[in-house]
Amino acid sequence: MLTGIQVVFLGGDARQLEVIQKLYELDANIQLIGFDNLQRSYSGVRKADLTEEVLSEADAVILPVVGTDDTGKVEAIFSSQELRLEERHVAALPKHAKVYTGMAKPFLTNLCGKHGIPVVELLDRDDVAIYNSIPTAEGAVMIAIQNTDITIHGSTCTVIGIGRTGLTLARTLKGLGANVKVGVRRNEHFARAVEMGVTPFHTDHLAKELRDVDIVFNTVPAQVLTAGVIAQLPPGSIIIDLASKPGGTDFRFAERRGIKAMLAPGLPGMVAPKTAGRIIANAVSELILTEAKKRGMNR
Amino acid sequence: MLTGIQVVFLGGDARQLEVIQKLYELDANIQLIGFDNLQRSYSGVRKADLTEEVLSEADAVILPVVGTDDTGKVEAIFSSQELRLEERHVAALPKHAKVYTGMAKPFLTNLCGKHGIPVVELLDRDDVAIYNSIPTAEGAVMIAIQNTDITIHGSTCTVIGIGRTGLTLARTLKGLGANVKVGVRRNEHFARAVEMGVTPFHTDHLAKELRDVDIVFNTVPAQVLTAGVIAQLPPGSIIIDLASKPGGTDFRFAERRGIKAMLAPGLPGMVAPKTAGRIIANAVSELILTEAKKRGMNR
Repeated sequence: MLTGIQVVFLGGDARQLEVIQKLYELDANIQLIGFDNLQRSYSGVRKADLTEEVLSEADAVILPVVGTDDTGKVEAIFSSQELRLEERHVAALPKHAKVYTGMAKPFLTNLCGKHGIPVVELLDRDDVAIYNSIPTAEGAVMIAIQNTDITIHGSTCTVIGIGRTGLTLARTLKGLGANVKVGVRRNEHFARAVEMGVTPFHTDHLAKELRDVDIVFNTVPAQVLTAGVIAQLPPGSIIIDLASKPGGTDFRFAERRGIKAMLAPGLPGMVAPKTAGRIIANAVSELILTEAKKRGMNR
Repeated sequence: MLTGIQVVFLGGDARQLEVIQKLYELDANIQLIGFDNLQRSYSGVRKADLTEEVLSEADAVILPVVGTDDTGKVEAIFSSQELRLEERHVAALPKHAKVYTGMAKPFLTNLCGKHGIPVVELLDRDDVAIYNSIPTAEGAVMIAIQNTDITIHGSTCTVIGIGRTGLTLARTLKGLGANVKVGVRRNEHFARAVEMGVTPFHTDHLAKELRDVDIVFNTVPAQVLTAGVIAQLPPGSIIIDLASKPGGTDFRFAERRGIKAMLAPGLPGMVAPKTAGRIIANAVSELILTEAKKRGMNR
């Protein structure tokens, strides 16, 4: 339980409600900043303004999945007011406090670093990335069904990269009855693909291997779908790029060639906000619990 | 090959293009009625008006998947003119001619019956229904992803009926990682569900079995999701009804209870017109080929 632990939520979207619910169930003391328009109420959970006083008592500060922008602005869809994290806020935090977010921009990392406050990036964790790969794969499947006139079943789908997201996606597409090929670099990834019953090839041969593809899914955050590769794609094939912005596709050339190419980052929050929220909730509650135990605060 | 066989297409949508292409490749003599706005052209394929002359030479007439309406109107998305099949048209057909469609309304069956012209309903065929269940299942998956805030993976999905569509859907959902339950009546369906690794229950216990469901998929064309059953559904669950109109759901009561319920018939043509067209094309070409062989017309 988190009895006596002070948790401050600073902005966020529907996903954050799952995190609030979870920490509420664990009996944390919760203050919500940037939730003025939230209808739901929890007994004992207070709404607060962004002030140094509130932050000076925080053991943990939970930011949205996207953290802050480059100037400290924090997204808060349940508030009509602008939230901006400033140095005075971070300076007010107790020395043992931690800041939790999905991904941190340099603005946040630098500001917290200056005051010795650790920033925990949840999406960096392997477990969170693997759990998140499930809604990502389902979102990719939805986009594929919406944007093709064929079924995924019986189609040739190529997944580039078989990391945390690529592996889930390859398994999902195979489950739907697609003919799945995966582009890999490492021998152990080649072996994993063989074990899964999908067809691996080395990404050195990407252009050649994509000549008969229907749907290309990229998960590699580097320009792998270059103009030279896209030139080999059959007419009517499509590219769904799941890598973080700016993706791994030469979108300019794809458009010129008439190949539909879509950059689709951040699918979990879009297609399954509740599941995505629970993933964050489980990870963050476990971390705060571990932290509380270390400090002897766990009751 | 279908050399010398006269095939008349009468209306249709994008799916029909696949059928035209297939019969064109088989060298049939093709006349297209209701395709005036079609850009694509095939050498030797003629566009024609709906006249007795054209029909008097037809060995096979191919109508759209939905056939005619109750008054003989034929859908033709590649034409701005209204097409209406009248008795004089059917009367003009040679006695050996056959009419092919997906489903026939009584209007069409009666009219052709009166003149001794067989109507072949392709969607009645088991093979066509099984092939069509693939795009239906993918469409159902798309709707489920779009209309829930959770992933299918890890959710509890109940499929009512394990016929041609239900079986495909159960397999597809299992492939996505759902916890799949199927409501069945017959012992052999119970056994098939066990073999597939999904959890069967008897539909007599539907209300009880749906208490923990996230997504209900109905494939049974009878009112199975009654008010009494819907009353047991947990809040936030949704119903996707794949049975032919009017479906198997008490939609009025579902709305009153705040349960989202969607009737989604005709998914193959919506989510995968090319695949759906190929399914029709394969079935119809095989049938015409068999017919031509019988009549000694196959070269």
